[in-house]
Amino acid sequence: MQDSRRLSRPIRSYRPFATGLCTVTALLLTLSAQAWDGLVEKQEFLMEEYTTRGGDTIAPVRVGWEAYGTLNEEKDNAILITHFFSGTSQAAGRYDEDGARGYWDSIIGPGKPLDTDKYYIIASDTLVNLNAHAPNVTTTGPASIRPETGEPWGLDFPVVTIGDFVDVQKALLESQGIERLHAVMGASMGALQAYEWASRYPEQVERLIPVIGSGMTDPWLLATLSAWAAPIRLDANWNDGAYYSDTPPLDGLRESLKLVTLNANHWQWANETFDRSWAEENADPSRSLEARYAIEQTLDDIATARAQVADANHLLYLVRANQTFMAGHGESLEAGLAAIEAPTLMLYSEDDLVFAPQSVKRTAELIAADGTPVKLLPLEGTRGHLDGVLAIDQAGNELSDFLAR
Amino acid sequence: MQDSRRLSRPIRSYRPFATGLCTVTALLLTLSAQAWDGLVEKQEFLMEEYTTRGGDTIAPVRVGWEAYGTLNEEKDNAILITHFFSGTSQAAGRYDEDGARGYWDSIIGPGKPLDTDKYYIIASDTLVNLNAHAPNVTTTGPASIRPETGEPWGLDFPVVTIGDFVDVQKALLESQGIERLHAVMGASMGALQAYEWASRYPEQVERLIPVIGSGMTDPWLLATLSAWAAPIRLDANWNDGAYYSDTPPLDGLRESLKLVTLNANHWQWANETFDRSWAEENADPSRSLEARYAIEQTLDDIATARAQVADANHLLYLVRANQTFMAGHGESLEAGLAAIEAPTLMLYSEDDLVFAPQSVKRTAELIAADGTPVKLLPLEGTRGHLDGVLAIDQAGNELSDFLAR
Repeated sequence: MQDSRRLSRPIRSYRPFATGLCTVTALLLTLSAQAWDGLVEKQEFLMEEYTTRGGDTIAPVRVGWEAYGTLNEEKDNAILITHFFSGTSQAAGRYDEDGARGYWDSIIGPGKPLDTDKYYIIASDTLVNLNAHAPNVTTTGPASIRPETGEPWGLDFPVVTIGDFVDVQKALLESQGIERLHAVMGASMGALQAYEWASRYPEQVERLIPVIGSGMTDPWLLATLSAWAAPIRLDANWNDGAYYSDTPPLDGLRESLKLVTLNANHWQWANETFDRSWAEENADPSRSLEARYAIEQTLDDIATARAQVADANHLLYLVRANQTFMAGHGESLEAGLAAIEAPTLMLYSEDDLVFAPQSVKRTAELIAADGTPVKLLPLEGTRGHLDGVLAIDQAGNELSDFLAR
Repeated sequence: MQDSRRLSRPIRSYRPFATGLCTVTALLLTLSAQAWDGLVEKQEFLMEEYTTRGGDTIAPVRVGWEAYGTLNEEKDNAILITHFFSGTSQAAGRYDEDGARGYWDSIIGPGKPLDTDKYYIIASDTLVNLNAHAPNVTTTGPASIRPETGEPWGLDFPVVTIGDFVDVQKALLESQGIERLHAVMGASMGALQAYEWASRYPEQVERLIPVIGSGMTDPWLLATLSAWAAPIRLDANWNDGAYYSDTPPLDGLRESLKLVTLNANHWQWANETFDRSWAEENADPSRSLEARYAIEQTLDDIATARAQVADANHLLYLVRANQTFMAGHGESLEAGLAAIEAPTLMLYSEDDLVFAPQSVKRTAELIAADGTPVKLLPLEGTRGHLDGVLAIDQAGNELSDFLAR
């Protein structure tokens, strides 16, 4: 158990082998990797200084990362997984025996579509990660201490974009000697990062797998994201972002997270999971304005728990990073998507209430316009947008084939 | 002009004729009604005391009402129009030459599907109407002065239900001698009132036309409504509903109304109406957390204007009235819908994000289960839920035929 746990530390441990080694060692590593039982060590990547695409300096930048599988000698078997709005680097595996598994554990592992026996799968926490106060998350954002002041950045933290998320990931990969990605794959906000990778650095991305996301944030999503930000701004404890030495705006954060949960789902899920039960047997909602229904209580409980490890300012910065997104950040969406050369497998949901299917289809058309191969596949399910996270296993065969091609 | 305006006051003016009159006078009235140019007078209905279905007393109750067309001698040509969440009694016509027209003006009028030459079409403001501070709205709710105290009711106002809305309408109709409705028709929350009428008082409803609504509020809508309430509760000025002598929670109310607008629409509308323009030419959202996109600014402007005449507590009471809805309020949805005997024409949108199409279809099945004739027709458009209000004219022929049958 300890051994396999150590084997899941791919880079720092393996660098000696990876830079000059015999075939036997490589073979042994491969065999050992097959025994991976999913225990993962979260690590930290440090940049002394990072200059944003907007020209602002953030020093230092720290982000968490983790990997599954082994980087080969040629360093050409890396697959980057980019996470969604409320996600972390934990795409697969677990941090300890009792821990929860990563969100795409069903497709990442030995013999799985993203086969850790073949690929070195790496994922990192983004800048301004939502779960800034979670024990296994390392991120840099408004909640981070600014060395010059010894205080959290707060709203002095510069606005960052999906492009900045990508450029920090690029530095992480370069620190491991990775110059080309076998593939980049991400869901939702992770899809945005994947598009950005393939558009901005087309020579470094061999395959693109955007899941439940489009090549730009469309007006519907601009407004939806704006709605997610609103409850935080309404909470008096938000205090224009200066709450770190005081009470954080947990009520506003909770309501924001409830909206995120609701929008990322679909009425099919709500109506098959819940009924009209009251939250408390003796509190009839038709007799009291304070009484609630069970579904309200459940959404409240989930959001309250998530708010404990989340940061309200980080949510606002994430909203903004998502809003500003257009692949390649160039003159036009057409130009940004034309820059993509990697064969592309797109997965989406017809019932997505966050990323409109219309915008996803338009993205596929624009990538394909200059002859880039694009396959667009619908996911089935009752969770709407979230089917891209929770029901990804149905695309297993397609993913295996696409990665092997 | 003055004449036709006077003719649009259907009851108080006509009662002398309607209780004992010669055929010639009735004919003249009919001919005059044909000349109706859409000017409407808003009137007030007073109940000295009303006991809610929950057993609470509200004294007095005042609601606004208006009518188009003429009540015939037999008093059997009345069609009741019940309004949606943010609506008022103004279904058609205008209050003055320069005023805006009612939301269903395209189908109500001389020669239109709801033909004012044939029918007496009446509509009233509900209890706890959202637009409590609008000049043409009369309603009773938390913002109303309670005679015992001389102060607004605030949260001492009892929780009211869709059933209470219906029972106040019933009293209004009875005050005009109307015992049977040729039809009841309403959109969204108006559909809930229509179902309730037909389920609770089946012998008084000859035709039922529910638009974009289902026979009960499903769990998805319970949660959606809950999200609409949240911003108000987050606004410190809400002060547990006691804001009438102080600053009202306009920020929270504005954010609530933005959510209502967004949810009642659809991504097709947002993406065909807006682009990624910034709200201000020199305020780049990628450089400032405060800068905004045009769609955000537009939704904000609309909601800010609407908040000026709306009342935050009324919104909370409306949320609750909608949440508690199940047709007939009996043992089960099946029983509530089985009680409906009126032939039913249901209009809905497949892209409705408020009332799930699945729930609408289930409602149609349950009404039809005991042989009640039901026709279910989809509306086309890009506005989602709102197509039931904005694109109703496409159902004109169906409505004409259904009302004439």
